[in-house]
Amino acid sequence: MRKITIFAVMNQIREIIVTNDDSYAAEGILVAAQLMREYGNVTIVAPKEPQSGKSASISLDMTMRLTKVSEEEAEGDLHSLAVYTFTGTPVDCVKMAMNMFLERGIMPDLLVSGINHGSNASVASVYSGTLGATAEGTIYGVPSIGLSINTHSMNPDFSGLVYYARKIMDMYFSDKGGFREGDYLNINFPDIPMEKIKGIKVAHQGKGQWVREFEKRVDPKGRDYYWMIGTFNDLDEDSRGDHHVVDDGYISIVPHRVDSTDYEEMERLKSVWKLE
Amino acid sequence: MRKITIFAVMNQIREIIVTNDDSYAAEGILVAAQLMREYGNVTIVAPKEPQSGKSASISLDMTMRLTKVSEEEAEGDLHSLAVYTFTGTPVDCVKMAMNMFLERGIMPDLLVSGINHGSNASVASVYSGTLGATAEGTIYGVPSIGLSINTHSMNPDFSGLVYYARKIMDMYFSDKGGFREGDYLNINFPDIPMEKIKGIKVAHQGKGQWVREFEKRVDPKGRDYYWMIGTFNDLDEDSRGDHHVVDDGYISIVPHRVDSTDYEEMERLKSVWKLE
Repeated sequence: MRKITIFAVMNQIREIIVTNDDSYAAEGILVAAQLMREYGNVTIVAPKEPQSGKSASISLDMTMRLTKVSEEEAEGDLHSLAVYTFTGTPVDCVKMAMNMFLERGIMPDLLVSGINHGSNASVASVYSGTLGATAEGTIYGVPSIGLSINTHSMNPDFSGLVYYARKIMDMYFSDKGGFREGDYLNINFPDIPMEKIKGIKVAHQGKGQWVREFEKRVDPKGRDYYWMIGTFNDLDEDSRGDHHVVDDGYISIVPHRVDSTDYEEMERLKSVWKLE
Repeated sequence: MRKITIFAVMNQIREIIVTNDDSYAAEGILVAAQLMREYGNVTIVAPKEPQSGKSASISLDMTMRLTKVSEEEAEGDLHSLAVYTFTGTPVDCVKMAMNMFLERGIMPDLLVSGINHGSNASVASVYSGTLGATAEGTIYGVPSIGLSINTHSMNPDFSGLVYYARKIMDMYFSDKGGFREGDYLNINFPDIPMEKIKGIKVAHQGKGQWVREFEKRVDPKGRDYYWMIGTFNDLDEDSRGDHHVVDDGYISIVPHRVDSTDYEEMERLKSVWKLE
C-alpha cells in the first residue's frame, strides 16, 4: 500500500473545527462555537439534521450536500467563524471539514464536538455521534474533545459549563496542556447551577448497559412495530465511573483510546490458545 | 439508579445469535449460520437492508419492524435455525435478539457477527457495523466474535475461512477457550485459497486512516453533491497490525475492549493537569 504523508503547518492563529450530533441548529453547538472563538478561528461543519446515536457511522451509500450558512469576521476578542451544514453523520462532517482544511494545506489545531444535549457518560459513549466525531478527529491526528451536558433540555443553563469549560481550555492551551496522541477527551458536565458544581475529576468509562429496549405498538393496519426505549442498568461499583462522577456533582474527563486493542489479552491468547 | 440483575441460566444446548451488517440476504451470514449450527441452536436477527459503515449506531428516531423469515428444526448434525429480519442497524438487531432471549428467560452463549464481505481490520473496525454488533453483544455480557473476509465480492471462496473458523470455534468451546470479559474478538480472514493461508496470528488494531474521501459531482440542476470514496493511508510500522497480518496471508485475531478508557493517561492527566 502506498504511504501518504499529510503535512501539518504551524497556523498563525489557531484553527478549530466545531461539530456535533444534534445539528447546526442546536443551542449547544452555538455555545461551543462562541466559547472556542475566544481561542481561535472556528469552522463549524455540522449535520444538517439531528444525528444522535449515530456512533462512528459513515454514509457509504448516499449522496451528501454541503451548504455554507454564514461567515463572520473576527470582531473584538473573538476570532472568525464560518458555518457549514453537511447532510451526513458526525463522522462524515469531520471528514468533510478535514478535507476542506487539507485543501487549504493546513491542519486544524483542535476539534470540539458538542455541546451535546444529553449525557455521553458510561455506555452512551459507544453509541454517541458526538464521540464518533472525536474518534474521527483523532484518526486524522487532530486533538479532539467532546463536550456534553447531562440533560436533554434544548435550552439548558450553560453558565456553569462555560465557566468550567473555559478553565479546561485554558489548561489545555497552557504549557502543561495536551493529552496522549491517539486519545480523545470525553467531558461530561452535570446539569446543575455553577455554584453547585464541585469540581473536575478524571474518570473512566462507566460500566453499564441499556435493557428492556423496545416498546411494541400496533399500526393502523394491525401490524407490529417497535420504538427504541430502555432502562439504564448501572453495573459500575466504582465511584470513578464517569456517570457516577457526574451524578455526584463533578465534571468528568475520560481519555478514550481509538485503538481499543486489549494488549494484555493479546499476550494471554497467544499463550493459552497457542497461536503465533 | 435502580439496579437490574440479569440472570443467566445454563442452556441444555448452546444458544447462538448470528447477525451481520450486510443484511440477512448476504452469502456471508448464511455461511456463518451453517457453521454455527454445528455448535448449537442458531437465531439469526439480521438487518433487512445492508448496514455497512453503521458502527455502533442505534435508531432513536424511527420505528422498526421485525419479521420472522423461516425456522428449521435440528437435522442430522445440525441444530435448529430461526431467521428474523429487523429494519434497524446491527446494534438494533442485537438488542432485539437479546430482548427475545431475555423474554424466554435465557442468555445466549455466544454472538457471531458476519461473515462480513470486506475487511474490518485497522481503522475499518471503528466504522464497522459488524463490530458495532459485537460491541453490543459484549455490553450485554455475551461473548461476541466478528468474522470478516478481505474482499467485497458477494460470492467469495469461503472454504479456507470455514476450515479455519471451525478450528477457532473448536478452540473457543474447548477447556482452554474463552476470552476476557468485556472484550470481543475481531477476526479477519485473507481472501486466498485454503492451502495458501499461513496460519492464525493474534494481532492489534492496525494504525491507519482514510484520506481524500469525497468525490464532488454536479447534479442535473447544477448543484454540487458528494459521494464518499477514499484512499487508505497505512500508518502502522508494526508487522503485528491486523491489516498487515492479513496482507501477509494469515488470519488475524484482535481482542478489542468495549471500555476504551486510557487508564495510563487518566493518571497522567490527574497529576499534570492537577485534577482530582
